[in-house]
Amino acid sequence: MNWERELAARAELINEGLDRYLPPASYYPPIIHEAIRYSLFAGGKRLRGALTLAAAEALGMKQTCILPAACALEMIHSYSLIHDDLPAMDDDDYRRGKPTCHLVFGEATAILAGDALLTLAFATLCRLKEEAFQPELIVQVIEEVAVAAGTKGLIGGQVVDLESEGRTPTPDLLEYIHLHKTGALFRAAVRVGALLAQADEQALSALTEYAVAFGLAFQITDDLLDLTGNKVLMGKAAKRDLAKQKATYPALFGLERTRELAALQVRKALQRLEIFDARAEFLREAARYLLYRIS
Amino acid sequence: MNWERELAARAELINEGLDRYLPPASYYPPIIHEAIRYSLFAGGKRLRGALTLAAAEALGMKQTCILPAACALEMIHSYSLIHDDLPAMDDDDYRRGKPTCHLVFGEATAILAGDALLTLAFATLCRLKEEAFQPELIVQVIEEVAVAAGTKGLIGGQVVDLESEGRTPTPDLLEYIHLHKTGALFRAAVRVGALLAQADEQALSALTEYAVAFGLAFQITDDLLDLTGNKVLMGKAAKRDLAKQKATYPALFGLERTRELAALQVRKALQRLEIFDARAEFLREAARYLLYRIS
Repeated sequence: MNWERELAARAELINEGLDRYLPPASYYPPIIHEAIRYSLFAGGKRLRGALTLAAAEALGMKQTCILPAACALEMIHSYSLIHDDLPAMDDDDYRRGKPTCHLVFGEATAILAGDALLTLAFATLCRLKEEAFQPELIVQVIEEVAVAAGTKGLIGGQVVDLESEGRTPTPDLLEYIHLHKTGALFRAAVRVGALLAQADEQALSALTEYAVAFGLAFQITDDLLDLTGNKVLMGKAAKRDLAKQKATYPALFGLERTRELAALQVRKALQRLEIFDARAEFLREAARYLLYRIS
Repeated sequence: MNWERELAARAELINEGLDRYLPPASYYPPIIHEAIRYSLFAGGKRLRGALTLAAAEALGMKQTCILPAACALEMIHSYSLIHDDLPAMDDDDYRRGKPTCHLVFGEATAILAGDALLTLAFATLCRLKEEAFQPELIVQVIEEVAVAAGTKGLIGGQVVDLESEGRTPTPDLLEYIHLHKTGALFRAAVRVGALLAQADEQALSALTEYAVAFGLAFQITDDLLDLTGNKVLMGKAAKRDLAKQKATYPALFGLERTRELAALQVRKALQRLEIFDARAEFLREAARYLLYRIS
């Protein structure tokens, strides 16, 4: 499998979905819809949405019918980036090689564009009903996403991350940040795909554990790339974590041990997929790719 | 009917619900849950939530089972106030007589508290399933709320309001702002109550028109109070609209004509309730109360 090509194919499907589920850029008032599209179509790899599709695929469900769920996850990811980049938060000027939303559209519009994407994500999840899913399942999926995006997930991680700047965190605190700030959405992305594909208890539990390990491995390798990568490759300023004294794995464990920790999580993720057949290959390659990025 | 007492009774029920549906203030990380509760329990009258309860009541449904919906509407209202008050938006220091969220907890936490309340609103709507509503109806309600809170509702109104500062708006533009910034959430509040109470088409359409007229009357009378009220009564600085050259009815039409426009909308709202019996009395009194506030 050429994983990057497979990912790109899924990203294209997701981009088409996003374009369809969002109001057009010209919809009144245009400024907010332009801001939403500027950030949402800034060249994200659609990894979260692709994992939603891939989890359902591993269980034999076709991609297109769960597209609203994949798109909703990407909207939430995009909202969280817009708000994270705000001057009052991480104060970042570049994201994926482009000026951040608030630099282009102003702070007020950026705040509202984030709010709008979060809101649109839930409206988009409701569109699963057009794909003839049981309404009960749709409510379960909406709850899963809302909890993952809330203070027991994404927002909780962001709060603790901001609180920890400039301090040396304990390993437990660092794990809390990563499991929540990055991990919660990966976990929800995979679980939503699995739930919509009617995963039985064993499959759901294996995919959930895969997602948690994947999310940790993703964040650990992201920390490494921030430290060792360059601006062109990353599309954002490198060594920002260091400059802001962010809680990171390399800062706590050093480079060598951090690489080992990433490899350990990837192994864990792959083990959890042993009960699945070849249809889980995209999920497997996704985990392997994380190690490839830092090799 | 002593309307203020009836409203207070509903507010108490809603406050109990909010306390139950929210993580406790001590839940980790406590700072965000403290910020959420600080703003949410800052003494709001719970008018939107009460209208949700009252719309269902007008159709003979008891209050308690639709409490999650009433609470979700109040969470969204509270999130919109926290974000509106931010320095990049309206830059307000006081709300309901207390320092605004970002003054007490800092801007980053205030942004995240707003995000969290919006997210929690959708998680709370999912709890309607505990009240044995049809999942199909719950999805319909979630979609109704998401659309009302999005760029075709609340956020659209906020964008145009910010864009219009310092300019003289046309009457059409002013109506757009009010119908969206304030009106969309009132409309959704009433419609959600009606939908959950299985309103037939005629009742739903009458209640929707009631809500739109009520929302306009509310905003017009709010504009009047901002101009003529005082800080102690309002709990926020008076004449802020004037200072910020906000688009308002009095600025466009003068005091006298603005009072007439409010009375006109209240009459319209009351007319729409003519098909209902005594159980719609709370809705009727709510509309009459708007005129009492400015008399």
